[in-house]
This record gives sequence, structure tokens and C-alpha cells, in this order.
Amino acid sequence: MNYKIITYTLGWVLKIEALCMLLPLICAACFDEGQCFYILLACIGICFAIGVLLSYKVPANKSMYAKEGFVTVALSWIVMSIFGALPFVFSGYIKNFADAVFETVSGFTTTGASILNDVEALPKSLLFWRSFTHWIGGMGVIVFLMAIVQLSGSDNFFLMKAESPGPNVSKLAPKVKSTAKILYLIYIFFTFAEIIFLVAGKLDLFSALTLSFGTAGTGGFSILNSGIANYTSYQQIVITVFMIIFGVDFSFYYLLIMRKYKDALKMDEPKVYISIIAVSIVLITVNIAPMFSSIGEAIKHSAFQVSSIITTTGYTTTDFDKWPSFSKTIIIILMFCGACAGSTGGGIKVSRVIILLKSIVKGIKIAAHPRATLKIKMNGRFVEHETVRAINVFFASYIVIIFLSVLLISIDNFDFTTNFTAVLSAISNIGPGLGKVGPVCNFSIYSPFSTVVLTIDMLIGRLEIFPILVLFSTSTWKK
Amino acid sequence: MNYKIITYTLGWVLKIEALCMLLPLICAACFDEGQCFYILLACIGICFAIGVLLSYKVPANKSMYAKEGFVTVALSWIVMSIFGALPFVFSGYIKNFADAVFETVSGFTTTGASILNDVEALPKSLLFWRSFTHWIGGMGVIVFLMAIVQLSGSDNFFLMKAESPGPNVSKLAPKVKSTAKILYLIYIFFTFAEIIFLVAGKLDLFSALTLSFGTAGTGGFSILNSGIANYTSYQQIVITVFMIIFGVDFSFYYLLIMRKYKDALKMDEPKVYISIIAVSIVLITVNIAPMFSSIGEAIKHSAFQVSSIITTTGYTTTDFDKWPSFSKTIIIILMFCGACAGSTGGGIKVSRVIILLKSIVKGIKIAAHPRATLKIKMNGRFVEHETVRAINVFFASYIVIIFLSVLLISIDNFDFTTNFTAVLSAISNIGPGLGKVGPVCNFSIYSPFSTVVLTIDMLIGRLEIFPILVLFSTSTWKK
Repeated sequence: MNYKIITYTLGWVLKIEALCMLLPLICAACFDEGQCFYILLACIGICFAIGVLLSYKVPANKSMYAKEGFVTVALSWIVMSIFGALPFVFSGYIKNFADAVFETVSGFTTTGASILNDVEALPKSLLFWRSFTHWIGGMGVIVFLMAIVQLSGSDNFFLMKAESPGPNVSKLAPKVKSTAKILYLIYIFFTFAEIIFLVAGKLDLFSALTLSFGTAGTGGFSILNSGIANYTSYQQIVITVFMIIFGVDFSFYYLLIMRKYKDALKMDEPKVYISIIAVSIVLITVNIAPMFSSIGEAIKHSAFQVSSIITTTGYTTTDFDKWPSFSKTIIIILMFCGACAGSTGGGIKVSRVIILLKSIVKGIKIAAHPRATLKIKMNGRFVEHETVRAINVFFASYIVIIFLSVLLISIDNFDFTTNFTAVLSAISNIGPGLGKVGPVCNFSIYSPFSTVVLTIDMLIGRLEIFPILVLFSTSTWKK
Repeated sequence: MNYKIITYTLGWVLKIEALCMLLPLICAACFDEGQCFYILLACIGICFAIGVLLSYKVPANKSMYAKEGFVTVALSWIVMSIFGALPFVFSGYIKNFADAVFETVSGFTTTGASILNDVEALPKSLLFWRSFTHWIGGMGVIVFLMAIVQLSGSDNFFLMKAESPGPNVSKLAPKVKSTAKILYLIYIFFTFAEIIFLVAGKLDLFSALTLSFGTAGTGGFSILNSGIANYTSYQQIVITVFMIIFGVDFSFYYLLIMRKYKDALKMDEPKVYISIIAVSIVLITVNIAPMFSSIGEAIKHSAFQVSSIITTTGYTTTDFDKWPSFSKTIIIILMFCGACAGSTGGGIKVSRVIILLKSIVKGIKIAAHPRATLKIKMNGRFVEHETVRAINVFFASYIVIIFLSVLLISIDNFDFTTNFTAVLSAISNIGPGLGKVGPVCNFSIYSPFSTVVLTIDMLIGRLEIFPILVLFSTSTWKK
């Protein structure tokens, strides 16, 4: 294990975090929030000082393999979250440190689950920081780091692989650094587009910024206790459209930019993703129509909620916990599914779901025709056997971790639906669940122990299981 | 597709069913239940007549491959259930035909879920038939058939594979016929042992017989509305012990009989099975202790319920839906797990769970060391890659079918916990679930549509997914 390159990278992560905190600092200055200004300044100082200390000496041996990649990414996210929680703790707005870390992890992992009963009590600079963590976490801090610094001698593909969502990372450019840059440019472009559309709809800049951060990262923290319910229909529709946009694999946009329309159209995932959204909206609309005054209202809420859940954003315009059981079950299935791989969304990812379902169909055919040789196709190409295996193991791990976590948090004695959707919401980085963690509730009901379990689940989900499990595996630390 | 061998086998299945109905007929004679006697006689006549008709002509081409094996087994179970439901329909005790089929499938698949609100209203001969379906379904009617008739020219290994639970069928003897005989002899031996122990504990013969059928097949139908709650502690403990016995892989007993103690001890599955039971009993006992007057009472109920659920029997001595959330979550996890492969129990099976968990651990190690070559070991031997793949696909199918079924039955608008545990209970062939299908409730709440969905789930679970899916697959019927 090359410890030096790990601490060196962690140092850089903290320096980036200090840089990121400059934005809420400016916000504190603008809104004249004196106390927060100094607290943020102190946090920036701490992050920067420790960051410089860790990354002062460039390690001689810059080699970084899979193991180091996983460990670095896992530790980066943990360190980033612990330091990112400091403004909440220092300002006293979140008293319990475990709660503050939960809130920050929920931000960075783009979950959007909150332990705050009254979000509106927070000063604007802290609300800004809270929403901005979504934006940082959406595309990933390591990816950002790779876009600006040459971390190690080798091409840091392992790092990118460990942080990026999806079964296969598509290298958009021959160099990882260029790929990271392209990703961030697309990300910034769409974020600005949303801000402009929202401001054009007469939303104030602060709200437009924070809501766009939450949409772009598929996070879901809102700055009002009522979530997105009290915004205008125009604003809600803009958010709906952008949620769907940020749930698409960014390499799809890259292909469009490069005018490779044919290649873009060959991609199966975006088509299936859009189809799932369309079918879900129709089914839910029919199911919930009697609850709303007009069919238009039902479509609006259905479209918003479906987009919000499948992209794992977690914004809410209505209390879907009151919807009929059929709609709620669709919501739960969408929670598993998640957005496209290579987007900022969480969950299992549409491409994994496609391959998983195809492997089941293959399983049926093989059962009936044991001698047949069948291969799974995706995007017009055969999927490597190793990828199918990895996806099957990923899915099994997902389910096992969910039920293990439900068991652990069930010590708090809440009902099964609450516990199950709380864990599912955490590991799929969504935000709200059903029952006592439904859209109008929050995660403050859980004990510190359960809060830690759910915090780990959020990290496991965002980093797609293995980086965190590798961190806990004894075989990683042997020899 | 060799249709002739399929109909020929179906004919034999019906003849066997007619034979099996002789026992409740005797019961009707003993208890002087005139109406039931004639109804059963009529049913026997129908089964036998159609059976003879279908199997009259021995097919010239006796070849039977995987596809025919799956289709035959799936159709056998469906046909068997439809004809097995006739006594309930003819007698008028279950008016709705879908409900009667549900009850019979629940019997044959050893689920034990009931749509009857008042079991005690049934005449004894029908109660006997209802419990006896558990015994027939436990070891499998096809296995029984193979033990007594030479079905086709080839060694009907595909049939056995399609009906027997577990990822790999162990051939106990070189010939399938001998294997089937050995299995049934062990099955009969333990069933008689339980009957004797129960009668020795002053239970009347009728109760001892029906309860033993339910235990042996890991079914769970009881003949009292109170389930097993009103039997003596001695009787409850006897049932607990025998539930655990019937959950063990029968090849373990075969090895013991053959005095191959070393080979028996090498088997991982029974050890893990016993360990899971022990750990679950301890955890639940600690959790529920405050609810009972003495620690002994808590241990008794905990041991009974853990054994009942992991073996997928489904007998209940207490309303575990009132237990704390932690204990209920353990129950749900045990519902997934199920008993040993090669036992009469359902669920995913302990051996599959072991290999699944090992494949996750392997996945973590491979993530960190991509070049390592790792193999999964079981019973001291390497597990074939193909077996691991099949188990992963099996698990994925299991989960996908569960959520799809939950979606379908959620149209009835019951809560998620009820729907989820109803489906899980059906597919794992357990019986009770939680919430509105909890131990003191039954499945009569569901609409005919949901009843059909749950009926299919029970068959899917008992036949381990693929036979039923192969039946519905278009590729099976092509050309």
C-alpha cells in the first residue's frame, strides 16, 4: 500500500474543500452574516492548513493501483464529510457531531436526507454550503481534482473508476484529465442553464443557485421546510426537466457535442431511462388522478415525483406517502433503479438493471436449452462476461447491505416500511422514504447509532459499494 | 418438444393423486363424514379416469431433455393443484375456485398460507387432505413417481433437477430411481418418528398425523384457528425439533446412514444452518424477553418461530407481528434465507446464501486486486463457476419477481409491509407474513387477481423459479 500517495491526495482534497468554502464565505459577506463569515473563514483555514501539511511533500513513488484507488476515494469522501460538517457544528445549528456528519455526507453523496426539523432557521451562507455540497459531490471531488491537477505519474484511471457511477467508466478522451474536464464543463453548462431558466421565471438568485445545485448533483436539499411545494408551476416544471437531464449519462451529451449522433442513438440506456420515466408517469397519474383537482395537477406531481425519485434527487412537491399503495410501490422500485450510469444520479443504475434483466432472461433460456451459448448485448455490442458477473455481485451486495442495515436500524423499533425505505433512500442517495421518513418527515427520529449506519449506507451507495467495503476488508490491509 | 411424454407423465401424476386421495377417503369413512366420502370418491374417480386416459398409451419416443423436464414439472404441479382443489370446491367449503386453487397450491408448495377464516369449520377428511398435500409436495410428487415407475428410457435426471430444491441435486445413488427411493424412505422414517413422539405426548392420532404432515413437508397448515398456540409445551418442542430436522439436506442423513460420518461432517450447509438458527434464537430471545413472563417462555417461542420460519414451515405459537421491529426484521431475513438445499424447506436455501455471500467477499477482493484469481470453496471443494453464475441469476430473479409481484398486488391498496411479506412468504413457501397477513390473519383479504399472483409466486418458489418461467418463455414453445 502506497500510503504517501494516499495522504498526498487527501491533502489536495482538503485544499479543494477550502476552495469550495469560499463561495459560502462570499455568500455570508453578501448577506451580512458576520458570525457565519468568521466560522467559514476558520473552517477554510483549518482545511487549507491540514491540506497543505498533507500534500506538502510530493511523494517520490507516485504509483497508484486499484487498491490505493479505492482506499483513496473512500477516505477522501470520509475526510471531506468530516471537515465539511465543521461549519454546522461550529455555528451550533447542528449540535450533535454525528448528525452534522450525516447532513454533510447526505450533501456530498447527493442524498438530500436531512436531520433538520427546521431548515429555514439556518443562515443563508450555511444553506448555500449545504446545497453546494450536492454540486461538489454530484460529479465528484476526485474527478474535479483530476481535472485540475496531475496527481500521479500514471493515468489515474483507477481513481476515476472508483468514484464514477456505473458498471463501466467511459473514457471520453484518451487522457483521464481531459475526460474529467469535459465532464465538468457539461456539468457547469447545464447548471448555469437551469439557473438562467429559474431566474427567468422570477426566482431570486439565491434560491435559483441552491435549487440548481440540488438538481445538478441530483441531491435534493431544499431551502424551505415545504420542499419544492410552494414554488410556481413553471419553476417546478423547469426543475422536472433538469432533473431528467442530469440523470442521463454525460457521455450521451458528449457524443451530441461531438456530432456523433449515430453513436448517441445507439446507446440503450437513455432510451430505457426515458421509457421507464414515461411509463411510471402514466401509471402513477392514472392511480393518483382522483386525489387532485385536475388531471394536469396529477400529471405535474406525478412527473415531478417520478423524475425526482428515478434520478435520486429527492425533491418533493407533494406528500407521496399519502398516495395509493400502487404508486408508492412504483416509487420504491424507482428507488432501486436509479438514473443512468455516468450521470450524477444514484441507485443501481438503469444500465445495470438492463443487464441484470437480460441475464435473467438468459438464465431462463439456458435452463431450457443447457447447451445453448447465449451472450448479452448492450448498445449493439456484446457485454463482457466479467461485466455481467460484476453486476450480479453488485446487485447481490446491494440487497444484502440493505437488509443488514435494516436489521441494524430496526433496534430503534420503527416499522419495517420506515426502516426499509430509509435504508433504500440512503443507499440509493435519494432523500425521502416512506412512513416516518416520508416527504414531510426527516431522519432526526433515528438514534446516533442508526444515523451512523445510514451515513455509511449513503457513502456505500455514492461510491457504488466496493470502495467502502475494500476499506473495511482485512485483505486490503494485509502485508 | 416431446408432447407425448409430457401428457404421459401428467397422466401418471393424476393417478398418483387419486392414490393419495384414498387416505382422506379412509379418514372420511372413519369419522363418518358421508358427504365428504362421496365427494372424495368422485374426485378420485375423476383423477384416475383422466390419468388413465392420458397415460394409456406409452409413448414410443421416451426422450426427455431439460426443456421437457421443466415443462413437465411445471405442468404437473399446476394440474395437481387444480384437481387437488376439487374436494374443497365440490364440498362448498371454499366457494371461489381461485381461492380453492390458492389453498391447494399453498398445500402442495408447502407454503401453508390460507384464505380460510375458520379452519375448524372444515370436516376432518378435508383437513386431512389439506395437510396431506403438504406431505406430498414436500418431497415432490415427481420424485415419488420416479421412485415407483420407470418413466422414460433415459435416467430422468432433468425431472428430478427441476423439482428438487437447491442449486445442485446430489445423486445419492447411481440411478435416479434409487435416489428417489432413498429420499422417500428417510422422509417416511422421520414422519413416523414425529407421529410417535406426538402420540406419546398424549396427542390424538388425527392431530399427530396432520401436524406431522405439516412439519415434514415444512408446510404449516394447522387444524386449529389458533395455530400451534394451544398445544402443550412438550408438543411444541417436539414440533420445533422436527422442523429443524426436516430443514436439513437429506443427503446429510443418507451419509449418516451409510456411516460416512467424515463426509457428513464436511458439509458446510448444515453447520451454517444450525448456526443461523442458534444466533437468531439468542438475538430474538434477548429482544422479546420483556414480553414474556419467564425467560423460558421467551426461549420456547423464539426457538419455535425461528425454526418455523427458517425451515419455511410457518407454524405459529404466538403473534410475532407484535414483536419488536428488530425481531421482525430477523424473521424477514430468515424468510429470504430458507432451509438447506435438498430438504423439504423453501426459500433461497442456506447453501445459495453461503455461495452468494462468498461471491460478494470475492468481489471485494477482486476489486482491490484485479489480477488475483480467486475461487469459491464449499464443502471443502471448489464451486464451479457455472454454479456461482446460476446462483447469482437465481437471486436476482428472486428479488425481481418479489418486487414485480408486490407491485401487482399493491393494486389492492394494502400497506407495503403487508404486501412485501405476503409475497416473500408466498415465494419462500412460508405461510404467515407481517401486518395484515400476520400470524393471526390470513390471505382472504386479497382480491382474486392478487390471489392468482400469489398462487403463481408459491409455485415459482417451490419449483425454484425456472420451471415456471420456462413455461411462460416464448423461446420454449418456438419451433
